[in-house]
Amino acid sequence: MSTSGQELYAVADFCLIPMGTGEPSVGPYIAECHRVLQKSGLTFKMHGYGTNLEGPWDDVCAAIRDCHLAVHGQGAPRIATDIRIGTRTDKTLAPGSGNAGKLARVQEILAADKP
Amino acid sequence: MSTSGQELYAVADFCLIPMGTGEPSVGPYIAECHRVLQKSGLTFKMHGYGTNLEGPWDDVCAAIRDCHLAVHGQGAPRIATDIRIGTRTDKTLAPGSGNAGKLARVQEILAADKP
Amino acid sequence: MSTSGQELYAVADFCLIPMGTGEPSVGPYIAECHRVLQKSGLTFKMHGYGTNLEGPWDDVCAAIRDCHLAVHGQGAPRIATDIRIGTRTDKTLAPGSGNAGKLARVQEILAADKP
Amino acid sequence: MSTSGQELYAVADFCLIPMGTGEPSVGPYIAECHRVLQKSGLTFKMHGYGTNLEGPWDDVCAAIRDCHLAVHGQGAPRIATDIRIGTRTDKTLAPGSGNAGKLARVQEILAADKP
Repeated sequence: MSTSGQELYAVADFCLIPMGTGEPSVGPYIAECHRVLQKSGLTFKMHGYGTNLEGPWDDVCAAIRDCHLAVHGQGAPRIATDIRIGTRTDKTLAPGSGNAGKLARVQEILAADKP
Repeated sequence: MSTSGQELYAVADFCLIPMGTGEPSVGPYIAECHRVLQKSGLTFKMHGYGTNLEGPWDDVCAAIRDCHLAVHGQGAPRIATDIRIGTRTDKTLAPGSGNAGKLARVQEILAADKP
Repeated sequence: MSTSGQELYAVADFCLIPMGTGEPSVGPYIAECHRVLQKSGLTFKMHGYGTNLEGPWDDVCAAIRDCHLAVHGQGAPRIATDIRIGTRTDKTLAPGSGNAGKLARVQEILAADKP
Repeated sequence: MSTSGQELYAVADFCLIPMGTGEPSVGPYIAECHRVLQKSGLTFKMHGYGTNLEGPWDDVCAAIRDCHLAVHGQGAPRIATDIRIGTRTDKTLAPGSGNAGKLARVQEILAADKP
């Protein structure tokens, strides 16, 4: 396979958990991830239990890696992240439209329920 | 342990994936989950790659189980779900405030970045 | 739906992460989960990044809940767990055979690769 | 940050789910992932609900990307993967020892339970 990873578009979501920090709160670490993602130029959106993120596969993985590096830089000795990542070949997504499009499609179906 | 599961409050997020459906689209299945969650009475909010959900541990698990049953009922022969679920003993959350509170805390920290 | 949750068989895997513990190591907490699972009577098997677990849906969820309770009891103020959970209606699994069967099927396919 | 991603060692686990395939079975797709991972040179081990995988962060992400490409090549129009990925700065792991070491540590603790 000669694909560079720039050719495969990934629609993802991740939840990063700092470990061994001595305090249960994680807000400052997640805020730092937000700053890292902003510099990445990728489309992202935080929610209550993670962050939607999308772009070329390699860029998405590099952005999450940079979040790990930044959170280690804040003093967290260990980090565990859960990533959900999806790709598809049946249609081409306009850049940045993947997660928003999925949500809109469900809302459209539900809107038809209303009498 | 005599805890009934009503005593442990869970803040969660889940992403349900129908398998073997013969079509890559999942919108109608996720819409059906939305209807199931609405009947559950639990606090929930959909995003681009899953659904925030919270309540007593057993109720959260029962609601996701009912989503599986409903999606099987729609014809999906197999389902794989990813659940992120968190509990804490260091503070008591007002019911329904868990996921929203986490997001608000990060936004508050980020707001202080602005000059 | 009148299904009690005893009727839906779940094949799962979970990874429990204690937070705010002040030390990056989690071995003692995961060992405690192993003891809890042993008492549950469910089929389970630990691996390097989680534990395979299966049984009736409600029992699986109750077992993971009891792991949370036990780990809080060990002093972890916060816990975040990632659960992968699957159900299927296209075939009936012999109790306890779900995860092992999936692995065996892949190994069987790979065995046919050998010249 | 100038880290190339070769400097950050990642201990991971992933579960890849082909979607829209018209059949609930996934064995042939997972077998193909096994072949891809074998070519990657990374340390990996399949279990009942995913595959342990470890190495430099970028290599781990590239290997999972190559699994997606191979499974799309087999005809799956859509794929959803769940990745658990961990990094730590408090100790240096011997390459390939991360997941096995975590499991061994828990087994060591449990062995001390025996009378």
